[in-house]
Amino acid sequence: MVSTSPTSSSSTFTATALLVGMALALSCSKKVEQRRRSYARTAEKNNLCERFAAPRRYGAAIRLHPEAYRRYRDLHDNVWDQVLNRMRRSHIRNFTIYYHEETQTLFQHFEWIGHWRPGVHTRAQEATLFRADMQAIADDPVTKRWWKECEPCQIPFRDPQQTPPSAGGQGEWWTPLECVNHCGLWPTAYSQQDRDPDFVKRNKADVAYL
Amino acid sequence: MVSTSPTSSSSTFTATALLVGMALALSCSKKVEQRRRSYARTAEKNNLCERFAAPRRYGAAIRLHPEAYRRYRDLHDNVWDQVLNRMRRSHIRNFTIYYHEETQTLFQHFEWIGHWRPGVHTRAQEATLFRADMQAIADDPVTKRWWKECEPCQIPFRDPQQTPPSAGGQGEWWTPLECVNHCGLWPTAYSQQDRDPDFVKRNKADVAYL
Repeated sequence: MVSTSPTSSSSTFTATALLVGMALALSCSKKVEQRRRSYARTAEKNNLCERFAAPRRYGAAIRLHPEAYRRYRDLHDNVWDQVLNRMRRSHIRNFTIYYHEETQTLFQHFEWIGHWRPGVHTRAQEATLFRADMQAIADDPVTKRWWKECEPCQIPFRDPQQTPPSAGGQGEWWTPLECVNHCGLWPTAYSQQDRDPDFVKRNKADVAYL
Repeated sequence: MVSTSPTSSSSTFTATALLVGMALALSCSKKVEQRRRSYARTAEKNNLCERFAAPRRYGAAIRLHPEAYRRYRDLHDNVWDQVLNRMRRSHIRNFTIYYHEETQTLFQHFEWIGHWRPGVHTRAQEATLFRADMQAIADDPVTKRWWKECEPCQIPFRDPQQTPPSAGGQGEWWTPLECVNHCGLWPTAYSQQDRDPDFVKRNKADVAYL
């Protein structure tokens, strides 16, 4: 009796510990989901921006110079590390550029998650954060040098003679687009890797299935 | 002695159980991350598609009929539930449509995660899944009715006289775009909500910060 009792009690406790552990892990993820839902509901009711609001979406367009296709692709197959790093620190995620041959237009889509922090409650607070994040990119010397490489490839739709961003221009170099539809099912988490290992340089594999 | 011993031993066990629970939760998340990384490395080495590969990205463009702006926005402010549901079941996420005024062009961006399942190892397997997912949308009678509403608003860039998808056309109604750049930092999880509570109907709030 004396020898079996500790064994059985220790195995009981191991089992209990495991159960508690699993319950804890489960309740953690449940609580996070409950919190997210409650935030989403509050945000919806009060038109607030909360920690778990959807990322903000931005689309923009610019014309590609007819002879600059190869140069532009070469540049973007090897985007400088510091440029990506500055974008990441300015809370830009999922940044994608597409090219439309017929209209020689570049189309960009990105998401911004700078409002994913406590204490951001209004659209005005969010807009201030967004502007600061964008300004930090515009003020970055490496990004300015990067833009200086890209700008000769681009022709803005509005006011083509405007001062380019690399020279401190504040005009609409890329034309902002209007978001006319979103299906929901937005990203709630992002990878930490700066480069997508599947991104295929200089070929059309990304559209091959369509 | 008899009365203190069970208390102290039970509190010790509670503490142990909690610690084990926390360690378990931590090791779980660590293991998932390790698995994701190892998958990513394998995928990179062998050019395989694995469970945690980035979502596939698709961009496409079509011209909006000059007089159809209001109609198109009205339609997309109230997309039918069944249409969204069919897209979700076909593993489409983060589907967004933008409108560019100058060229009267609609741009669409979406992500596809149909390869996020075990046993999908090659691009060929993935392409088969993608085609099946798209075909399920094209075969859906409600989606066909939805397309019939939208198509009169659209003018395809290539072959404008082609049979529209609602009538079984297999041409390029939307022109696929070439992805020329991606910053990494791709989505690794998505919300389950079909509608973004922050999506603003019929105004330009989404571009107000740019």
